[in-house]
Amino acid sequence: MALLLHSTPERGAVWGHIFAEAGEGFIPDEASVTDPAQVTHLACWTPPADLSRYPNLRTVICVGAGTDHFPALPEGVALSRTIAPGIEAMVRDWVVMATLALHRDLPFYLDHAARGEWQPRPARLARTRRVGIMGMGRIGRLAAASLQALGFAVSGYSRSGRPVEGVEIFGANRLDAFLAGTDILVCLLPLTDETRGLMGSAFFDRLPQGAGLVHAGRGAQLDMAALRWALDSGRLSAAMLDVTDPEPLPADHWAWRDPRVLITPHIAAHTDAKEGARHALAVIRADRDGQPVPGLVDRSRGY
Amino acid sequence: MALLLHSTPERGAVWGHIFAEAGEGFIPDEASVTDPAQVTHLACWTPPADLSRYPNLRTVICVGAGTDHFPALPEGVALSRTIAPGIEAMVRDWVVMATLALHRDLPFYLDHAARGEWQPRPARLARTRRVGIMGMGRIGRLAAASLQALGFAVSGYSRSGRPVEGVEIFGANRLDAFLAGTDILVCLLPLTDETRGLMGSAFFDRLPQGAGLVHAGRGAQLDMAALRWALDSGRLSAAMLDVTDPEPLPADHWAWRDPRVLITPHIAAHTDAKEGARHALAVIRADRDGQPVPGLVDRSRGY
Repeated sequence: MALLLHSTPERGAVWGHIFAEAGEGFIPDEASVTDPAQVTHLACWTPPADLSRYPNLRTVICVGAGTDHFPALPEGVALSRTIAPGIEAMVRDWVVMATLALHRDLPFYLDHAARGEWQPRPARLARTRRVGIMGMGRIGRLAAASLQALGFAVSGYSRSGRPVEGVEIFGANRLDAFLAGTDILVCLLPLTDETRGLMGSAFFDRLPQGAGLVHAGRGAQLDMAALRWALDSGRLSAAMLDVTDPEPLPADHWAWRDPRVLITPHIAAHTDAKEGARHALAVIRADRDGQPVPGLVDRSRGY
Repeated sequence: MALLLHSTPERGAVWGHIFAEAGEGFIPDEASVTDPAQVTHLACWTPPADLSRYPNLRTVICVGAGTDHFPALPEGVALSRTIAPGIEAMVRDWVVMATLALHRDLPFYLDHAARGEWQPRPARLARTRRVGIMGMGRIGRLAAASLQALGFAVSGYSRSGRPVEGVEIFGANRLDAFLAGTDILVCLLPLTDETRGLMGSAFFDRLPQGAGLVHAGRGAQLDMAALRWALDSGRLSAAMLDVTDPEPLPADHWAWRDPRVLITPHIAAHTDAKEGARHALAVIRADRDGQPVPGLVDRSRGY
């Protein structure tokens, strides 16, 4: 049995080293497969087109945290998304940066800087602002703790409504109340049938006037036309996006040139090669020992 | 005895309310002074030209944290700089934002965004980067704690060399070693004879190639021509500045248009009017009780 990696040669080198040390079978790319029956695990961001080539495939491991882009897998093949401290910390860092950027009016200052204008405006204390986080999984809870440590009031919206210490949690039936109390909205939701297109005009209308949007979920959750409308009406004052619809955002898209919108090209999360390999090893070992596979995705739920 | 405020009408209203509640004498502006002998304390950002008008003046209270712009005061008049949790937290927030912005390549992404280019680049984990903070006073220690909580390795440079838990501290005679190990340099130093012009070409040459600069100290500490040289040579990869030389930065200054430099117009700190008034009350009471005046500035030291 062996793991087949479908990635870059650079990552292949890192993974190969870690798998050799661990004494686990490793195939660095599809071209190196001599006997497809040996492949029991596959690690990739997007899977190769024909998985039926591997009759003994047990698990596909997505090297990222989100798996919404995955096609249906053959019967009996499990899907694991990579759970790694590095991914979570990276998204947290991006969210903290983006939240502070909106809190401290960075879009306003960058716009004035582009015209050489020194234009201070009054600032507010973090403790006077409420950050509302949609999606209170591992990353959401990490972001909540960091933002609370910076003094922000933090509330969370989650389907489960599971309590988080120090955070006011709003369950699925209290979205209106959650949005009405949110000054800076952070989206960290996975893409599912329920969250696709979630952020549209009626959604933004439930926020207070002048709210900020920090989006590190998935592009398809945000109606970009509704975003523009919300900015033009003043419902939203500014937005920082790591994900867009579509991706990549076309060069002539309005959002690139709107000073109220800061965009990074889907870089909030980036799996460290070593951490990705270690997650894959944990999956292989759990599967061998009959233990629950780490990061197992419930595809009916979508994450 | 009364405190005279030299500020805006908006702040005057907030201060007036707090002083009335506290039962302390308050004069909202110079035009309202009927008997100059009543003025025992003066609160201002820049003092009025003629302080000799007030024969019983005991203390001048700067409403900000830095007092380098203050002229010499009459013999026997003490100077207090405002110590307020809000100022410290605001500078900390700005420093965390700026450090994350350099860590996560925001100047690079904003530059590409201006051309509509979706151009991801590899990211690094915070724990692989060392942030070096110059100036380990109250704000420096607060920033160090927040950056450590985000995973950064943090070291500090301070004249006193006083230990700070979890932070490697470099005293005044170890600046070279401090700079050599710093990936992102944060300047929070007060402006003194020693720190004026500190950051010049020879200084930047002691940093590792590609370092980042976060500057929330004072404009006159940074040689802007040396900054440009350090960016052009690759010694510095990017800089985020809240203070510049001069201020305001002229509209035609090269730094406004350099994509490697992000500028905010000296807005990192902003004294909350209520906190400023409370600090002033604390000064008046300490002075009356013969206790040490909070925020007392040692003018021979400069802070």
